[in-house]
Amino acid sequence: MPFWLKHYRRELLAGDLAAGVIVALMLIPQGMAYAMVAGLPPVAGLYASILPPIAYAVFGSSMVQSVGPMAITSLMTGASLAAFAPPGSALSVVLAGQMALIAGVVLFLSGVFRLGFLAGFLSRPVMSGFTTGAALLITGGQMEPLLGGPPAAIHLPSAIIGVSSLLTLWAAKQYLAKALRALGLSTRVAETLARLAPVAVLVVATAVVGVLGLAQGGVKAVGEIPSGIPGIALSVSAEHWRALLVPGVLVAFMIFLSSQSAAQSLAQKRGERITTNRELLGLGAANVASALSGGLPVTGSISRSAVNYSAGANTPLASMISAALVVLILVVPTPCVSLLPLPALAATIILAVLGMIDLTTLRDSWRYDRGDAGALLATVAGVLLLGVEEGVILGVVLSLATLIWRTSRPHIAVIGRIAGSEHFRNVERHDVETLPAVLMLRVDADLYFGNVDAVVDRLESLLKARATQGRVTCHVVLVMSAVSLIDTTGLYALTEISRSLRAQGTKLHLTEVKGPVMDRLQQSDFLGKELSGQVFLSTAQAFRHLAAEASQAG
Amino acid sequence: MPFWLKHYRRELLAGDLAAGVIVALMLIPQGMAYAMVAGLPPVAGLYASILPPIAYAVFGSSMVQSVGPMAITSLMTGASLAAFAPPGSALSVVLAGQMALIAGVVLFLSGVFRLGFLAGFLSRPVMSGFTTGAALLITGGQMEPLLGGPPAAIHLPSAIIGVSSLLTLWAAKQYLAKALRALGLSTRVAETLARLAPVAVLVVATAVVGVLGLAQGGVKAVGEIPSGIPGIALSVSAEHWRALLVPGVLVAFMIFLSSQSAAQSLAQKRGERITTNRELLGLGAANVASALSGGLPVTGSISRSAVNYSAGANTPLASMISAALVVLILVVPTPCVSLLPLPALAATIILAVLGMIDLTTLRDSWRYDRGDAGALLATVAGVLLLGVEEGVILGVVLSLATLIWRTSRPHIAVIGRIAGSEHFRNVERHDVETLPAVLMLRVDADLYFGNVDAVVDRLESLLKARATQGRVTCHVVLVMSAVSLIDTTGLYALTEISRSLRAQGTKLHLTEVKGPVMDRLQQSDFLGKELSGQVFLSTAQAFRHLAAEASQAG
Repeated sequence: MPFWLKHYRRELLAGDLAAGVIVALMLIPQGMAYAMVAGLPPVAGLYASILPPIAYAVFGSSMVQSVGPMAITSLMTGASLAAFAPPGSALSVVLAGQMALIAGVVLFLSGVFRLGFLAGFLSRPVMSGFTTGAALLITGGQMEPLLGGPPAAIHLPSAIIGVSSLLTLWAAKQYLAKALRALGLSTRVAETLARLAPVAVLVVATAVVGVLGLAQGGVKAVGEIPSGIPGIALSVSAEHWRALLVPGVLVAFMIFLSSQSAAQSLAQKRGERITTNRELLGLGAANVASALSGGLPVTGSISRSAVNYSAGANTPLASMISAALVVLILVVPTPCVSLLPLPALAATIILAVLGMIDLTTLRDSWRYDRGDAGALLATVAGVLLLGVEEGVILGVVLSLATLIWRTSRPHIAVIGRIAGSEHFRNVERHDVETLPAVLMLRVDADLYFGNVDAVVDRLESLLKARATQGRVTCHVVLVMSAVSLIDTTGLYALTEISRSLRAQGTKLHLTEVKGPVMDRLQQSDFLGKELSGQVFLSTAQAFRHLAAEASQAG
Repeated sequence: MPFWLKHYRRELLAGDLAAGVIVALMLIPQGMAYAMVAGLPPVAGLYASILPPIAYAVFGSSMVQSVGPMAITSLMTGASLAAFAPPGSALSVVLAGQMALIAGVVLFLSGVFRLGFLAGFLSRPVMSGFTTGAALLITGGQMEPLLGGPPAAIHLPSAIIGVSSLLTLWAAKQYLAKALRALGLSTRVAETLARLAPVAVLVVATAVVGVLGLAQGGVKAVGEIPSGIPGIALSVSAEHWRALLVPGVLVAFMIFLSSQSAAQSLAQKRGERITTNRELLGLGAANVASALSGGLPVTGSISRSAVNYSAGANTPLASMISAALVVLILVVPTPCVSLLPLPALAATIILAVLGMIDLTTLRDSWRYDRGDAGALLATVAGVLLLGVEEGVILGVVLSLATLIWRTSRPHIAVIGRIAGSEHFRNVERHDVETLPAVLMLRVDADLYFGNVDAVVDRLESLLKARATQGRVTCHVVLVMSAVSLIDTTGLYALTEISRSLRAQGTKLHLTEVKGPVMDRLQQSDFLGKELSGQVFLSTAQAFRHLAAEASQAG
């Protein structure tokens, strides 16, 4: 039994109940809408809204996360399935479940093996670019349902319903919360009610379609929802499994990242901690549950989770109540739902994803760091031009390329002693003393495979410059105060430096080596066999020792 | 006209001439052998040994690099072509040229755009794992030519030639140089002559085949070498171009890395500098030249370049002399070459690549850093089980994953002042003074997308621990002396930290911010709008200021 359930207190129930009902009102149309984005029958989105939140409640760590279908993961699912099954087909439903299964297993295993750190493969600007690109793609994809046909063959009644729904939703988003506050409601209540505007719009649109008989006039609607809950159905084709493996892994990555940002922002508000690896277990279990019940890949939704929180949710019981209400829709005959017009549903999708277009991060990063801004724009372009899967891969590559690029030329300062002190500073910026035959360098970075070439290059060019000035170099001192890590490639570079200096008759010394770095070096041959000089505790000690040696020699 | 040619001095000629002849003796059989590894007719390897070294001589930066076909790049070429064209077919020749063209253009553009830093995408242990895996794959692939047939149907005369060649080569590698030195030759001459053992073995094997008429007995030989040099032939199929794009980029990456390590080790011996981006231009030009003359992807060969160097090469003229000698083989009728038996050629390949199996790096990294050793072994397994292209990609992913993993949990020390000094140290290791309501932290890492979550987590848990101990925290001071980089994601994390502290009534201060980091922060809103406290120049100043504030308040 999960912790929260074991310690459940009665006074938490009112909040959970209210949040459960309100989130269900959002979840039912959103579930159907995001199933449409994935090219699946609307009912698949409802299936994905029942067992997954319950599985998450058992394994996950966030108290208020609302797990279910979500725009980006649905877009990715749709893009991956399109090659194998026509939209809405029985096969597409089977394959969507299969993708959820693959993603679920990957997520669960990542949790077991504590791979949460892999979230660090994507920088925030690149994630923002990905989200923006996905939002634009989804918007483009929803234009046809919104207008009842392709641009050249718009279906007028559909277009009127779609566009008027869109305008109403836009107006509600801009003004409704303010208006409700003006009527005397508290900010929290006003904002929660305003978030339910899409439900109201859908109810009105459904009523209009029903009363005017527009379904007969060609306005497409959700149609009959099969009652009951389906079991698992997986494809036996090895080719399908193989083809869905990479998309499954990629969607798992985005499920994790999307949910993580939702969970973190809410946990901060509630003063709670999110345990990344528990989060992976919860999302893994939720996706396996989705696969077992005819659903599609699911994740934590930032918008629904925010509503859940502000509507008063205290524990995952709120999500379980929402799930129960979704079951109700499936079990109790609800003929109204079948009349829900697709143009209005498309309008709710478009308005939701337009909110995901993030110009703030672009503006911030443009001002702060052009490299990050470039990576963001390239990711948007990648998603739009290459496709959504390729966009994720491109994003990861760009995040890492900017990292490698930035750390590939570390700052290395030639230092000297500030007269009469034990402080050492950059010779270019301060008036410092140096010893004639000693080159002291402070390496301001970890030594790893991405930057060792640059370090070796810099040292060589410094030595060459001294040689051209006719200065002899008997000692090179590397000040390691800023080095927290030397990987195997870095160790080889140090070895090469020491050997090449030794060949020129120059000794290499190290100072201020950090404890963990020293422990590692002691496990290698470097200190015993390769290092031609000494390891000093402090730079001042090295300076005194080498000065004394020079004066004796002199 | 390249720099070296403009300043050519007569006394350099003797060395270049000797090296040119000796390298040609290696290059002719190696070129044919590596063409076989790529599944191409042997002559393609000769074509690839003419124009590419000349193009490299014009654009490249190393004086002694021997550019031509090489084991790893040939293996990659063969693996990529196998899906489209049967080995040895005319189409395979066309597609190999096409791959060289793609690789050449990619390399040349990378040089133009100064992308040499991308070599930092592969750590040395992973590169070693890749090389070892490739050597094992090549050895496996040469067993059939060595034995004249598959294990179940060995062709006895072929197997005798192959195995005896292999044993002779092995013995020569072990003992020949020593024996020659014992006869009074200098180390350099002895080693250079020993490197020509494969040539001697091939000459003897060819003579045996010719004299005994074994070609009629089923021993496969190189066969007729068409005379003359072919022009360019490229496929017009868009599908081929698309399919070869990714393999072409990957082979370009390996061309660069292989050549880079060869060029660097030799430049170090010669006291020269390699300019990475010039190197890219040189390799790009060489591969385009190879594509234009019926060749395959080429790179700098570490073994041939070492022979070139020790045989006395002073400038790229040596390589041009080798190229001229290869032309001679093609233009002058040389019936002997056609009798060169494939089993003996396979033996030279196997002996060459067995030298690439690198257990030293495995042993070193196993002792020094298990993560690196694991990445090495995983790359070997990846190359053997998944394939050579997948192996490169896996290697890049593993290099970067170990990087992200290592830097994902940076060291953060709570610090205090050593009484009576201006020095600040870790409270856990030193006896230091602290101010009751102040938490001082030193962040020992750059703040980038891969570690910001861990930094935020650590700060939160420290604050929570203080709160449980009943200690109030009015000020948090971040000591930034070890922070050389804050990327956009890091900036957002700082903003979140500042906001969340402000909400708890705690001020955030920064000290010892490095110049370039400060310049960046001043371009953002952070210092003006978000930071609730101050930026102090030194930690000591911050300590004094906050101590004075506390005593005034008290």
